[in-house]
Order: sequence, then C-alpha cells, then structure tokens
Amino acid sequence: MTAAAGATMAGGPDVGAGGALAVVCGGGRLPGTVAAAVVASGRDVVLFPIRGWADPAVVAPFRHHWIALATYGRLVRLMRQEGCRDLVFIGGAVRPALSELRLDWGTVRVLPRVARAFRGGDDHLLSGVARIFEDDGFRLRGAHEVAPDILVGEGPLGRRTPSARDTADVAFGLGLLAAQSPFDVGQAVVVAERRVLAVEAAEGTDGMLARVAALRAEGRIRTPAGVGVLVKAPKIGQDHRLDLPTIGPQTVDGVARAGLAGLAVVAGSVLVADPQEVARRAEAAGLFAVGVTPPPEGS
Amino acid sequence: MTAAAGATMAGGPDVGAGGALAVVCGGGRLPGTVAAAVVASGRDVVLFPIRGWADPAVVAPFRHHWIALATYGRLVRLMRQEGCRDLVFIGGAVRPALSELRLDWGTVRVLPRVARAFRGGDDHLLSGVARIFEDDGFRLRGAHEVAPDILVGEGPLGRRTPSARDTADVAFGLGLLAAQSPFDVGQAVVVAERRVLAVEAAEGTDGMLARVAALRAEGRIRTPAGVGVLVKAPKIGQDHRLDLPTIGPQTVDGVARAGLAGLAVVAGSVLVADPQEVARRAEAAGLFAVGVTPPPEGS
Repeated sequence: MTAAAGATMAGGPDVGAGGALAVVCGGGRLPGTVAAAVVASGRDVVLFPIRGWADPAVVAPFRHHWIALATYGRLVRLMRQEGCRDLVFIGGAVRPALSELRLDWGTVRVLPRVARAFRGGDDHLLSGVARIFEDDGFRLRGAHEVAPDILVGEGPLGRRTPSARDTADVAFGLGLLAAQSPFDVGQAVVVAERRVLAVEAAEGTDGMLARVAALRAEGRIRTPAGVGVLVKAPKIGQDHRLDLPTIGPQTVDGVARAGLAGLAVVAGSVLVADPQEVARRAEAAGLFAVGVTPPPEGS
Repeated sequence: MTAAAGATMAGGPDVGAGGALAVVCGGGRLPGTVAAAVVASGRDVVLFPIRGWADPAVVAPFRHHWIALATYGRLVRLMRQEGCRDLVFIGGAVRPALSELRLDWGTVRVLPRVARAFRGGDDHLLSGVARIFEDDGFRLRGAHEVAPDILVGEGPLGRRTPSARDTADVAFGLGLLAAQSPFDVGQAVVVAERRVLAVEAAEGTDGMLARVAALRAEGRIRTPAGVGVLVKAPKIGQDHRLDLPTIGPQTVDGVARAGLAGLAVVAGSVLVADPQEVARRAEAAGLFAVGVTPPPEGS
C-alpha cells in the first residue's frame, strides 16, 4: 500500500463495512446479477462499466460511472471519490489490442507492470492487474466472495440429472481439464462417450459449442444427439477473484444446439448469470445442468 | 492366426520378401506418396482404395481394387488373391456413421469386435481394427516402416528456421500435447507467446487452423501476424501403424492463413505428403516447417 493510498483509504479490516463496493463491469448480464446480489446483502455498489464491453441496460439500474479501458488514473480517482475500497471485476472481457488503448497518466505510471502482466496467459495478466490495484491501497475481491449466491452449488439446476454415461463423461472431462490446467488453456471441454469432441481455447465456450453444433451438422460427430456433456472448471491455481468461469442462459442454448445431454460445472467455482433462467431453459430443452465436486487430486 | 489364414499366408518373417504390400487407401495424396516410395524400394504394391474416401487420380498409377468401407470379407479375399500378407492403412478417414455402412459377411463375422473398438477414442478404434486383421493372419505395418522417407526428420523442411520465441512456443505446445495425451485428444495445438490459441479435437488440424484464421479476422487474437506456431505430435502410446499425424501442403497453407510463424512436428513420428511441395510453400510464405525432438519425459 502506498502512502498516498494509505492516507485516502482509511478503514479497518472489516471490508463489509468499508463503504460501497466498486464493480468494474465487462460484458454480459453477470455484472447486474452481482450488483443486485450485493445490494440485497445490504451493501451499496458503484458500477464502473467499461465502454465497449459493458451493456448500458445492465448497468442502468445502479449508480455508475462509465470508464474507458486503460484509464486507470480516472478509475482510481472515481473510486476514491465514491469511498470505495473494495472492488470486483466482473463480466466478459476481450483481450485488447494495444493500439485500441487510450491511456491516462495513472495508467502510464503502472504501464511497466501492465506490460509484464500482458505476457503469457490470462492468469498471468489478471494476477498482475490485481497486484497493481493492491499496491494502490484497494482490495480486489472475488464476485463469489461478495455475492456467494451466484456460484453454482452442488447438484442440479432444474429437475434433470445426468445419467451414468453422462457422469462418466463428466469425470473424463474433469480429468482432461486438470491435465491441461498447468498450460493456462481454456476452461471447458466437450466429451461424448469418453471421446473428446472439443477443447476450448481462444474461441471461448460459446464458440466451442457452436463448433460442435457445426461439426454435427456436417456429419462429423457420430455420437447421436443427446449424448455428450459440456464440462467447465476453473483452472488449478486460477485467481478466483478475477476470472471464474461463467455460465448463463446462452450456455444452455449452446449446449442444446450442440446436441449434448447437458452441462456440468465444478460446484462452488463457476458463476451463473441468472440461475432461474438457466434452470428453466435446461428443463425446456431436456438438458441437465449440474454442479459437481471433482475427486481429490491424484485419485 | 487362424488355421485357414495360416494355410494361405505362407511366408517367413522377412516381410520385405513376403509378396506385394497391400495399401488400404483413405483420402488425400499420402497413399500415392507411400505407394511410390514402396515401389521405389523394390517392392510391389496393390492398392485398395476406399470408395468415398480415396482420390481416383491418386490411386490410378498403381494396381488397385476399389473396396467399400466395411466390406472386410471382400478385402481379405482380394488380399489373399494378390498374395499380400502385409498391409498398411494410409490416408484421411472420416469416422463413418453406422447407417452408411454396407456390410459383407466377412464384416458381420468380426462385427462384435468392431463394435467394441468403436466405443472410446480413435486409438481404441484403430487398435481394435489392427487386431482383427492380425487374427486373420495379416500383418499390419506402419507407413513409416514401409516408406521411412515419408516421415518428417529432424531439422527444417526448406530454408526458414524457428526463432528463439518460436522455439519456446514449440516447447510449450509439446508439453501441452503430452499432458493431454492420456485423454486421447487431438494431436495438434496452436501456441503464440506461450498462450494457447487453439486445441485440436474432432475438427482436425485444418479445421483448427481455419478457426485461428477466423478468430484473427474477428480481432480476437491479439498476438501480431507472424507470431505463433502449430505444434503437432503423435499421442503417447499411439499405434504408429495406424494413425500417425500427417502434414502436407494444405497444412502450410492453413498455417499461413492463421497468421503463424511456422509449424513444428515431432521428428520421426509425423508423415509428410509431398515434402518438396511443403518446403516450397513454406519458403514462399516465409514460414518455417521443422521436425523437432521433444525433451525426454519428466525433464
């Protein structure tokens, strides 16, 4: 913590009492879900939607200040004005091209650290960003800490449950994700009868599911419709404050179009935007959506 | 070996002297490359192109009999008539839908074993098929055994060589492929500055490269053009007689369209269709194409 930040950021360790929560918002509906959950828990929020990423309709119901990407100085100034000490990052992000960034002086100051963080995979980038905020006296929280209800818990969302075959495919997928994890690769795979149909990397989960649907339409996936699972897990060692995997209604739609039996996510480690709608669409499509606990490592 | 097969298939262990080599041909140019290499080594070949997969122009220069998929009885009869004891499978295959298959009685006889092999990943399917031929007295050879020149060796094809950054990406990709290998997943990944851009599964290498090109066109890949590598390796424990990874001129074209620096394959374990053309196109596109030796396991 710097001296300047220390002077500005008075407050004890009881962060729940530490003023409004700053919610830096990327794309999708999740920022609204998180903000509403925090408000429901009795804490004020101030949203900082990122221009080009955040959805104006999602942030409109809350107090908010639009910010541009890489205007770190402005964000810090606004958070201090609003008395925010804790912040969460939430919502979809697109890795930016350096040429798109319009820096402010606060950003230039931290640029060497950002540049270092920019090399390597997402985990590296995000933990670097977290450290920069912490150096300036802010406390980066996980959305799962400030709004635990948005995590998928153990068991099914909706009424459908996985079959024995589905359960075997889920276990296979969890094993593959664990094996890939040290390489900072994507967080999701599609498995059908222990055959790996797709592995997520830069295309994202929705892109991967669309590919499975397209391969099926081309006749290149031979397991019948209704067989196979989407499995999603956080990477081992992933900073849960920054980049938890997320599912939402569009994930269920993607699983349905891919012709799978359902989706499984690691309980307690995956965010769900609009759980009621996820359950409703899963039931309507005849799919299961379930939180599971992986076996302990090495088992 | 069955008694019937034993009676028909006389011949000592010197398979080079064991009559013409049967080449069961899938798609692409590789069957022609292999057949020509075997003929150049002084051994006769008889090709068995699979209807719907093999290219008539590729098989035309050689003695051949067209066969339908799953007409195992006909294939065995023809191979015996031609005095072939050794066979190789070579060329692109598409996992067939059961509804497309027109079985003959020879196939029906081995159907229970085929059905067992059909479950699980490709490795399982292919080793099951290999065992069936062996039970009938044939000897399944690897294309790399009968035509070693079609394997990519150590070092560059063409004049370009990988940079230090490319070499680091190749090492990262080889590590990821080794980690995934027990899950019988695809044989190729795209890595740029140690960030995994794509992992191959059911879409195949060409499909994966097209995805990287599309993601780049959409602005979703932020490493600049000319950075990043395709890395291709056999799966650990893969049956080299049946399913060695393959590159060819179209792989180089895909790498170029994906905006990568080049491609690396495990030396001695990857087939190359038309190595001269691969080298020519790589040079024309300013790409490297190189055979590498992975570090020993555990290092």
